[in-house]
Amino acid sequence: MISHRDVPKLFLQYRLISVACELVMHDTLEDFKKYRERMNEKILASGNQQIQRFFNLDTRAYEPGALSSKTKELLGLVASVVLRCDDCVTYHVIRCVEEGVSSSEFFEALNVALVVGGSITIPHIRRAVERLEECEDLRKVR
Amino acid sequence: MISHRDVPKLFLQYRLISVACELVMHDTLEDFKKYRERMNEKILASGNQQIQRFFNLDTRAYEPGALSSKTKELLGLVASVVLRCDDCVTYHVIRCVEEGVSSSEFFEALNVALVVGGSITIPHIRRAVERLEECEDLRKVR
Amino acid sequence: MISHRDVPKLFLQYRLISVACELVMHDTLEDFKKYRERMNEKILASGNQQIQRFFNLDTRAYEPGALSSKTKELLGLVASVVLRCDDCVTYHVIRCVEEGVSSSEFFEALNVALVVGGSITIPHIRRAVERLEECEDLRKVR
Amino acid sequence: MISHRDVPKLFLQYRLISVACELVMHDTLEDFKKYRERMNEKILASGNQQIQRFFNLDTRAYEPGALSSKTKELLGLVASVVLRCDDCVTYHVIRCVEEGVSSSEFFEALNVALVVGGSITIPHIRRAVERLEECEDLRKVR
Amino acid sequence: MISHRDVPKLFLQYRLISVACELVMHDTLEDFKKYRERMNEKILASGNQQIQRFFNLDTRAYEPGALSSKTKELLGLVASVVLRCDDCVTYHVIRCVEEGVSSSEFFEALNVALVVGGSITIPHIRRAVERLEECEDLRKVR
Amino acid sequence: MISHRDVPKLFLQYRLISVACELVMHDTLEDFKKYRERMNEKILASGNQQIQRFFNLDTRAYEPGALSSKTKELLGLVASVVLRCDDCVTYHVIRCVEEGVSSSEFFEALNVALVVGGSITIPHIRRAVERLEECEDLRKVR
Repeated sequence: MISHRDVPKLFLQYRLISVACELVMHDTLEDFKKYRERMNEKILASGNQQIQRFFNLDTRAYEPGALSSKTKELLGLVASVVLRCDDCVTYHVIRCVEEGVSSSEFFEALNVALVVGGSITIPHIRRAVERLEECEDLRKVR
Repeated sequence: MISHRDVPKLFLQYRLISVACELVMHDTLEDFKKYRERMNEKILASGNQQIQRFFNLDTRAYEPGALSSKTKELLGLVASVVLRCDDCVTYHVIRCVEEGVSSSEFFEALNVALVVGGSITIPHIRRAVERLEECEDLRKVR
Repeated sequence: MISHRDVPKLFLQYRLISVACELVMHDTLEDFKKYRERMNEKILASGNQQIQRFFNLDTRAYEPGALSSKTKELLGLVASVVLRCDDCVTYHVIRCVEEGVSSSEFFEALNVALVVGGSITIPHIRRAVERLEECEDLRKVR
Repeated sequence: MISHRDVPKLFLQYRLISVACELVMHDTLEDFKKYRERMNEKILASGNQQIQRFFNLDTRAYEPGALSSKTKELLGLVASVVLRCDDCVTYHVIRCVEEGVSSSEFFEALNVALVVGGSITIPHIRRAVERLEECEDLRKVR
Repeated sequence: MISHRDVPKLFLQYRLISVACELVMHDTLEDFKKYRERMNEKILASGNQQIQRFFNLDTRAYEPGALSSKTKELLGLVASVVLRCDDCVTYHVIRCVEEGVSSSEFFEALNVALVVGGSITIPHIRRAVERLEECEDLRKVR
Repeated sequence: MISHRDVPKLFLQYRLISVACELVMHDTLEDFKKYRERMNEKILASGNQQIQRFFNLDTRAYEPGALSSKTKELLGLVASVVLRCDDCVTYHVIRCVEEGVSSSEFFEALNVALVVGGSITIPHIRRAVERLEECEDLRKVR
């Protein structure tokens, strides 16, 4: 039996565990999206109109035009890998999967990034592949 | 009641929680500063005199001269964002707040960094804004 | 006396010299500005509206707001030096001179860039200083 | 006494703690190696032959030839620090220790990286020194 | 009439002009290709087998597979613009034109690079557009 | 015979040729060194003491210590290639030759840079090899 004297200690304990739990979750795709949205909202709420316009240009750059969204997302993926930005890689992996990029297409694009950007991109390629797996796992669940 | 046989298990449990707790704390401003100080001390203790001199030049670059410390910290912030170094961004956000940089000034500087460095800087701008909030929260507490 | 048989040869000779001459001129501030304008017009004439909007955002990022144009140009200069782009450095040196940045302010900003970006920025700092001299020479002429 | 009704809650609790524990462990050298191996296997299993060949070239670049492995690992370390890739830094720190790089040699190489790459490399130098300590601690244990 | 005493002077003069002429030509597409080939041959002649293999991987990365050569050249172009390498940009512009990339496709790809990489890529975008024009001029001549 | 009326035209002609000639020479090793020295003097004459100290640290980083000057120059060469700075590459090629780096050692170091930094470094490796040849040609002349 847990006595009432243990309550504060237990409360702290659960609190810590829940924080640890959130932390553990932090690195999932879902959490990545939530953090991204939450911070974007704060940035856009800052009232700096030019930053808002930049964010708008950023979104529109990947809309279909002469090139398809799929090709543009592959361009975004390769640019993110050679510039070595994990968050940008995650974003474009999710979008590539949504645009129906196949596994071979994905690895061929990563190979272009690897050859252009060198072995320094390998840790980011590892994380890109990890993210691809997460996306595929999510698909199976649905 | 918790029996004595549970003690080792419980000890481990608390140990893990405290480690998780430290981990959770690790990403706070306080922890950032402690880690930074602890490692800087170790680097300076290595006996490599030239590294010591570099660290000295690094500190002095932001001291007031023809340009104010405030302007120099903004220069450091923008340089850190376009070079995409989160630890350096954190450091200069703290210093900018100390130098009295206003919210509009802060976002205008971030906008210059965003336009020069492109969307690849956005994840770092998100973290810069998060750090700014932490600094402001700390202020309110005091 | 030059006989009529020499005319084609002489024509070629003068043609080459004038080309060489243009080439020599190519690296002056005046030529930099002309090339920049000419190519920007071509890019904007491509009909890609999003590129036009980016160029617009680029111009507006340095307009006075909470921060002065002078401070923003210094931010642009330091960002250009640490990212090591000579054309961008040239552009911001010209603008800094126009905004009345003094020699000591200029070198203090370059020192921040040098400390943040390291010795790899030195060749670009050399060219920044060369450009600054050209700007000052032009001033004396007027 | 813990009643049977607490079991699911307790199970969750232990589960979370063990996840948190893994997370805590994640940043150790051992875990770095495991993650690296696991993901490399997945990348190589993708069937993209060119990526396989690149990985092979990457390994062979550090084999002894006209230059010793020790010198080549120092080259890899400095390249990783100036390009600011923590995972690559960790890898080369481990390999430098294996090749018998002394503490003074290590710090002199880091100093070259610091001077070339500037203060923006300092957070990576901190982590390099932390990794070096971990390697030395492991040695003492053995 | 040109007397025989002028011969050495004239020889020097023509020599200089021809050197200047070569220099002027140096920046054309033709010369870029020649320089590239000449130096690649020297590098491959160095006897370093691993460099030879890297060059081979570099060529093969753009061969058609799951993705077309056209898409891969666009990936190479965007990677080169965000990493800001004029020679690589020139190479991929030539290849994009050979693969039938249309003007709108070209500018949409450049827009992705511009948004991802920021205004720091603009000087390289200018040169990319200049190269595109040269390629188109060559086509008309043929 | 050249009439007196041609004198101004001829003067201009020779002037242009001599400028073109200087330009042609500009890219030689000798000219690189002169430009470097001239601009360094101007930078040091600016009176900014911290820049002077940085230049001093830069020089001292390559002095022999636990690592030889030869190893340190190879570290500087590889750092310069992966960061893609032609002037820095030229400087370290000259210094490597002075320190007695053999051709195989040179190409093995370049191979490490190529694998780490990717194909984007190839244009800089071409110029490094060109510079190496110039250094060797100068040796033969002496």
